[in-house]
Amino acid sequence: MMQRPPAEIGMLIDEIDTPALVVDLDIYERNLDKMAELIEKSGKMLRPHAKMHKSPAVALDQIKRGAVGICCQKISEAEIMVEGGIEDVLITNEIVSRGKLARVAKLAKKAKVGICVDNAVATTTLNEECVRENVNIRVLVEIDVGGHRCGVTNPEDALNLAKIITASGNLSFGGLQAYHGSAQHMRTVEERSNAVNDAARIVRETVDRLKSSGIDCPVVTGGGTGTLMHDIGHDEWDELQCGSYAFMDADYAKNKFANDDFGTGFSHSFFVRTMIMSTCQPDMVVADAGLKAIASDSGNPTIAGHEHLTYRMTSDEHGCISISDQDNFKLGQILMLVPGHCDPTVNLYDWIVGIRGDKVETLWPVAARGAIA
Amino acid sequence: MMQRPPAEIGMLIDEIDTPALVVDLDIYERNLDKMAELIEKSGKMLRPHAKMHKSPAVALDQIKRGAVGICCQKISEAEIMVEGGIEDVLITNEIVSRGKLARVAKLAKKAKVGICVDNAVATTTLNEECVRENVNIRVLVEIDVGGHRCGVTNPEDALNLAKIITASGNLSFGGLQAYHGSAQHMRTVEERSNAVNDAARIVRETVDRLKSSGIDCPVVTGGGTGTLMHDIGHDEWDELQCGSYAFMDADYAKNKFANDDFGTGFSHSFFVRTMIMSTCQPDMVVADAGLKAIASDSGNPTIAGHEHLTYRMTSDEHGCISISDQDNFKLGQILMLVPGHCDPTVNLYDWIVGIRGDKVETLWPVAARGAIA
Repeated sequence: MMQRPPAEIGMLIDEIDTPALVVDLDIYERNLDKMAELIEKSGKMLRPHAKMHKSPAVALDQIKRGAVGICCQKISEAEIMVEGGIEDVLITNEIVSRGKLARVAKLAKKAKVGICVDNAVATTTLNEECVRENVNIRVLVEIDVGGHRCGVTNPEDALNLAKIITASGNLSFGGLQAYHGSAQHMRTVEERSNAVNDAARIVRETVDRLKSSGIDCPVVTGGGTGTLMHDIGHDEWDELQCGSYAFMDADYAKNKFANDDFGTGFSHSFFVRTMIMSTCQPDMVVADAGLKAIASDSGNPTIAGHEHLTYRMTSDEHGCISISDQDNFKLGQILMLVPGHCDPTVNLYDWIVGIRGDKVETLWPVAARGAIA
Repeated sequence: MMQRPPAEIGMLIDEIDTPALVVDLDIYERNLDKMAELIEKSGKMLRPHAKMHKSPAVALDQIKRGAVGICCQKISEAEIMVEGGIEDVLITNEIVSRGKLARVAKLAKKAKVGICVDNAVATTTLNEECVRENVNIRVLVEIDVGGHRCGVTNPEDALNLAKIITASGNLSFGGLQAYHGSAQHMRTVEERSNAVNDAARIVRETVDRLKSSGIDCPVVTGGGTGTLMHDIGHDEWDELQCGSYAFMDADYAKNKFANDDFGTGFSHSFFVRTMIMSTCQPDMVVADAGLKAIASDSGNPTIAGHEHLTYRMTSDEHGCISISDQDNFKLGQILMLVPGHCDPTVNLYDWIVGIRGDKVETLWPVAARGAIA
């Protein structure tokens, strides 16, 4: 069941129900424009990760500004994005079960679909399902570039998989998935720069190994918002997968940059609107956004305009703010929180409320909310 | 949009898609029966908290076994429960905005509705909305019994609110909401027992203060699964609000009891089914349930049958398990995880898959998933 929207188009922002996910459209569009400009200068392609926003409306805004397509993490997510009008989807994750691989093959009849593999079993199964559906799918080999999660761990294994792909009648070798997830949140410029340099070396070694066996690597894809300024300077990547740049979360704000705008000109466009619902305690107020309104994996949200205070999600539906005499909060007052982590927070909502100035301008359905299979 | 169910009724459990929320119906029914037995012996009423399961199907199972109604935390949750056939709902939380209080009044035309207050403004507004709808609503005063969250902090404030309620034409004074949230997760029997004793003392003082001003307290409601064995021994509570007992999460398993069945005979009935999707690393496997499949606020899930290992939700769609040579995991293998915290985990899913033996017996819609406003 989709929850009813917390707002109506045209209403004043004061009338938006709480908790609600709100995007400031001026800031959001500035983030998108800034990325388009950076990407154009870099000569790379942009394939934003839709696991962040899970909304075809946002994906279409990104494509309108030059993105070549989007990334998804799950087949269910990809299906919904294609249903929502996206014509080019890359599944940047491993899929193992035959049932899901059959759905990947089916989806390739409706859109340009790519997928990653890091093992021979899934590759062979996928080819069988593509034969059944009479489709050809672009398959990338995921390589571990330092994140130590999925992906083959040496050039030889990458070569073996690339050979299996090229030998499969209904698969085309699409290149390498080279994403370093943990590097996105390394705090210092030096740490991130080192991680990206190491990842680039692994990419080069792998591309060279493939080439020495006569296999060309059409595309190397990877990168993210946290490492963007480093990724851009490396020829090893052809395509970048940034997602968070559109909304920006509080965790990215903890990364240190040469300047204070995430080194890239991106700003928080994304907030959880909450209302103070209890003021009985002398040194604390309680608001109505808890663990079901804001993902807690990357720490507490910050409170816009009250950054010296801490918002603790003490339970499912409560957030507590310890205050001193200087802090003057009223029952019913609205606060705007910047969540620690965009992606799992967006996944809690059915609607994103787009605001401009003092008005609600748009309601985006989070169509792939809960599409985790 | 509701996601497609991860299973079909009648299929073998091996065919359930991943990640999926699975309830073992034999264990679940044993938990419900055990609670009904405990409650009957205690002479108290049971009003299970539906914020845990968010599913009318589960609520109806509880009512069938003698529960007097259910608790909800939000008006949106209550509306969905009434829509799903529940006739008696208590909103155990503060609501402040007029828009929401108007919905509470409207809901009272369809079902028996109660609500908590801890301030005069909301009480007065609620009465105005009840007048408009020509309904009468049962209003309980929430008192802080040690959780230091919502609720008035002294008997005098409780009395003042009770007077406002009794003086309001369309409100009836329903008694006291006396819930101690943080006591549920105190680890030792002694800590929990002391917390409940302190809470009981505050309830007594408040009830006495009301009585001395001629106000009788019809019902004192509160308590939870963690403090159940203590709550039951206290006359101060007439009605208990346990929720987790039906599913039981890994966090409750960390509470120390005199025996190893949570002191109450409840067992884990609730699992997240996940598939190993990558085995490239020599000392680690990766499964397909991450931060969007399991709430992380109460720590990692445990892995049923592999309790010596740690499941780390390293990213939105990945879970990593560090393994040694003794641990033999295969690509495509299924694992059953016991989440750290039921409530926000259930809130990530549209469907609960009910299994019995090796078959899928039922699919419960999590109808109030995302009902956080």
